[in-house]
Amino acid sequence: MASNPGNVETLRWHGQRLELIDQRALPARLEYVSCTNAVEVAEAIRSMVVRGAPAIGCAAAFGVALEAKRQEHCTRGQFDAAMEIAFRNLAASRPTAVNLFWALDRMRAALGRETRDDPKSAAARLARAAVELFNADLETNRAIGRAGAAHVPDGARVLTHCNTGALATAGHGTALGVIRSARDQGKRISVVATETRPYLQGARLTAWELIQEKIPVTLITDNMAGHLMRLGKIDLVLVGADRIAANGDVANKIGTYTLAVLAERHHIPFYVAAPLSSVDMAVADGGSIPIEERSASEVTGYAGLRWAPEGVNVANPAFDITPAELVSGLFTEKGVVTQPDTRKIRALFPA
Amino acid sequence: MASNPGNVETLRWHGQRLELIDQRALPARLEYVSCTNAVEVAEAIRSMVVRGAPAIGCAAAFGVALEAKRQEHCTRGQFDAAMEIAFRNLAASRPTAVNLFWALDRMRAALGRETRDDPKSAAARLARAAVELFNADLETNRAIGRAGAAHVPDGARVLTHCNTGALATAGHGTALGVIRSARDQGKRISVVATETRPYLQGARLTAWELIQEKIPVTLITDNMAGHLMRLGKIDLVLVGADRIAANGDVANKIGTYTLAVLAERHHIPFYVAAPLSSVDMAVADGGSIPIEERSASEVTGYAGLRWAPEGVNVANPAFDITPAELVSGLFTEKGVVTQPDTRKIRALFPA
Repeated sequence: MASNPGNVETLRWHGQRLELIDQRALPARLEYVSCTNAVEVAEAIRSMVVRGAPAIGCAAAFGVALEAKRQEHCTRGQFDAAMEIAFRNLAASRPTAVNLFWALDRMRAALGRETRDDPKSAAARLARAAVELFNADLETNRAIGRAGAAHVPDGARVLTHCNTGALATAGHGTALGVIRSARDQGKRISVVATETRPYLQGARLTAWELIQEKIPVTLITDNMAGHLMRLGKIDLVLVGADRIAANGDVANKIGTYTLAVLAERHHIPFYVAAPLSSVDMAVADGGSIPIEERSASEVTGYAGLRWAPEGVNVANPAFDITPAELVSGLFTEKGVVTQPDTRKIRALFPA
Repeated sequence: MASNPGNVETLRWHGQRLELIDQRALPARLEYVSCTNAVEVAEAIRSMVVRGAPAIGCAAAFGVALEAKRQEHCTRGQFDAAMEIAFRNLAASRPTAVNLFWALDRMRAALGRETRDDPKSAAARLARAAVELFNADLETNRAIGRAGAAHVPDGARVLTHCNTGALATAGHGTALGVIRSARDQGKRISVVATETRPYLQGARLTAWELIQEKIPVTLITDNMAGHLMRLGKIDLVLVGADRIAANGDVANKIGTYTLAVLAERHHIPFYVAAPLSSVDMAVADGGSIPIEERSASEVTGYAGLRWAPEGVNVANPAFDITPAELVSGLFTEKGVVTQPDTRKIRALFPA
């Protein structure tokens, strides 16, 4: 059994079953979706029952462990074939967050290409690896929180985008984790949350999570951020990341780039909080990060309510790229990288 | 009878009745709301049956004319008292768009403080004045369109915000009027329309109006504009105005300022199309323009569907201020003012 000891248990692991908060139903209803195999976990990721780069990584790891458990009475050949399908299925669920591929690589390593032990032992090893990965994410987020909180002054009015909280991770959160840590240090923090169209993660998830935590939160539409900055009502911007390129360019929820441009104009620090598992040293810069294009129906309305006319064309890129030059600092579990660049990011990884 | 000869008849004047397209119901249903007195027109403005600075001005003028017609059998004393209430009621309907106050001033002038003729003559004069104001708005928009279209190159991909079309005016439109005029000159124009949260005028009204006109339109959420500019997919930004200060600062739909900041970063022209009736020489700069704060319920959901948690704080400024320094050009019925400033704007008005 693994779960977040905090208020919000996004993933609950029961060995033969993974329970996920159905984030599509929040904040109206707090419900769990139960998965017992990799196909169900991949579908939960694709359909955004679970979202947020670190949480997707954890869910995928548990998806591998579930499938291994299910196949543990097969021959090793059948087991390996089934696991290969599970890995592919999970890898195809969403394209942008690199934590997904990082977590799957870790699980592949735990499976061990060379080791040909019996499936039951392999399944047990994979379950341990998934739980370790989950616990490591939680500890990583706390470390990010400690590192980042030093840069959040008492009384800060923090603008955040999308949801980067316990709901987006194993627990605590990345950008929201920094806010939690700052609050836990006794600082008075208030948050302005952008609603984050089209999927409204800010309005639905961040607002809900901060209300649970009793951290003051004001909800705005995405297009109000510039106005508030111009009026001097924002002290810093703090967001997460779905993937960070080797040069420090950041892929994150659509709208992040706009907030970074606005922050620069208003001389407001723009911080990115993310685990090192979000850094993809294999991509040189943001131009090489694939941007997921999601369904038009997310833009033409919400939750069955359609407000755009029939026949309209739609663009729906789920992420955008913020160039490293606009990032004041990167908060990681290994500390803060101010004004990240290729050299500073390479230094985070042991040779 | 006065109405727009184009596809979209936002206001239809029948002498004792004003019909307004109910813009709250678009694009699902094309329905008219009928008003027979000033109170009903003020309520139609307040509740956004009719919106868009020039259309609000026209509606208010017809509201005065309706009330005068209704009171034409009173004594002159009763008539004057009733008209005073009508003017105040209409002036209190919405605070930011200056065209409302401009139109009411024109109607006050037509009423004539000195003239003490019989109410029936006064009512007839007010009806003529309202129709003149309506026809002048239509002609003004065509002149803005001619002036602005010269700055819209063939093949241009134009980003626009909110709705500035026939639905926002007596007809033709301001920013959308420029697009109509450019298309009528044979230019191939495509439009990217921001949905314009919270009230979704872009998704509901601009998308609908451009589909009626067979002008290609792609709908995006507000937070996608920066991403598209960064990818080189936008050639110019073209918006309207609710009020322009004497120094060229522009009050317009919330989100406009952000688009102007993004346009500057990407070296994309940022144009504002507006009649001179939107210029308020009585306010020196944008800091003195009152910004309407609308209901929290517009931000926590849409049309009865609520997605934000109970208890969340909300900010809902309906407009923001774009400083003149970010405006590449102002398209008016008296021609184009490039890089507007106090001197150039003063020159538009005869001493």
